[in-house]
Amino acid sequence: MKLEQMLKANPDEIRGEKVYEGKAKALFRTEDPSILLMEFKDDATAFDGKKKGTIVEKGYFNAHISANLNTYLEGQGIATHYLGLMRDRFHLVRHMDMFGLEVVVRNIAAGSLARRLGMDEGTVLPKPILEHYLKADELSDPWINAYHIAAMDLCTPEQLEAMEELAWKINLLLSERLERANLTLVDYKLEFGVDPDGVVRLGDEITPDTCRFWDSTTGDKLDKDRFRQDLGRVEDAYREVLDRLTESEA
Amino acid sequence: MKLEQMLKANPDEIRGEKVYEGKAKALFRTEDPSILLMEFKDDATAFDGKKKGTIVEKGYFNAHISANLNTYLEGQGIATHYLGLMRDRFHLVRHMDMFGLEVVVRNIAAGSLARRLGMDEGTVLPKPILEHYLKADELSDPWINAYHIAAMDLCTPEQLEAMEELAWKINLLLSERLERANLTLVDYKLEFGVDPDGVVRLGDEITPDTCRFWDSTTGDKLDKDRFRQDLGRVEDAYREVLDRLTESEA
Repeated sequence: MKLEQMLKANPDEIRGEKVYEGKAKALFRTEDPSILLMEFKDDATAFDGKKKGTIVEKGYFNAHISANLNTYLEGQGIATHYLGLMRDRFHLVRHMDMFGLEVVVRNIAAGSLARRLGMDEGTVLPKPILEHYLKADELSDPWINAYHIAAMDLCTPEQLEAMEELAWKINLLLSERLERANLTLVDYKLEFGVDPDGVVRLGDEITPDTCRFWDSTTGDKLDKDRFRQDLGRVEDAYREVLDRLTESEA
Repeated sequence: MKLEQMLKANPDEIRGEKVYEGKAKALFRTEDPSILLMEFKDDATAFDGKKKGTIVEKGYFNAHISANLNTYLEGQGIATHYLGLMRDRFHLVRHMDMFGLEVVVRNIAAGSLARRLGMDEGTVLPKPILEHYLKADELSDPWINAYHIAAMDLCTPEQLEAMEELAWKINLLLSERLERANLTLVDYKLEFGVDPDGVVRLGDEITPDTCRFWDSTTGDKLDKDRFRQDLGRVEDAYREVLDRLTESEA
């Protein structure tokens, strides 16, 4: 089956062996070894899995939000894993070797950064900050830096540089795109991988699960912090982000 | 009073206003504004001050160990704050502007690194690792990286580079020097500052309080881990390090 046909198929028809299941997503093989089926789940966890819950229709909203933003980034020349949106809550994505690390970029102090450095939430950082974390549930995703990455051989120095360059470009592009939807990009987590041709690509969702989005006018939180902090109107926030992205489409 | 005279004086004669008191050291002004008197104390703390104690004569041993190693480094072309050993437990040091951050270099996994990354203590790192921490007791000295340092304007990028270059040179020099005393340099913490001429200098003690030293033959711990982990023979370890350094003097 060609990609165009696969995208129109029923996900159940092309869903093969499960190769990964995380807190909010699952990945399945397809008949094409270079293509994976990605499912966005309604499950939500926070605080290293200590808090668990379900956000109704989150999978649908996230699949559509992430499709919108990945498409935008691809259009701006950013290499991603995204191949297209299927019905409901499924993407087709490139099968990549992931580096096993998370890149976090922060424009405004919030969450763990604010706590760790004793900053007030909402403090605009004089310069954006980039952090690395090791993807390791059993260690609660510990922080690392370029030296740990080299010692653990998670990627080459060139791949690390490519990742950071992509992360900074994505920060500018996304901030600008979201501002058109009256959303402020506070911070976000991204994962990267390398495709069979050796190209470093973004291999992650871009959603209110993995980014902090604040209403640029009111400062209202429109992301998973509503779930983490029991702020209510959780589903509404996800829906609102999708609606604003759709309405502000270029 | 000239430096040579000051070094021979009774510390009480030249001790001025206290400008800093930490867990293991205190700093006092002297009549010369460019020179500070540094006292090495017997007090010991661990685990963010949760464990407190006294190590008899630690101040004496540390003053002499640190004098030995700072003198060695200066002889090898490393810029330090060290000006000389006074009697008992005092140094004279250059008055510098400190950067307010700690640089940790690790050759072998131990302590917080081993815990954080799930490594067995004693694992030789394939490449040494350098980490930065913010000096902030009330925040338990949180980890930071080059981006936090830039955002908080703790130093210039050039000063950070100078610090890292010094830290790596010191790692090679110290490892070699200690190996002659049959000691393995597992890891260490260093602080840096800038002198009135703008030169970045090491501004720290080099002692079993701030370094992990293991007996190269037996693997015995000869550092503050004996206090942290209640291993006994704490004073003996500090004395042993000093004796070995003195006996292996080039």
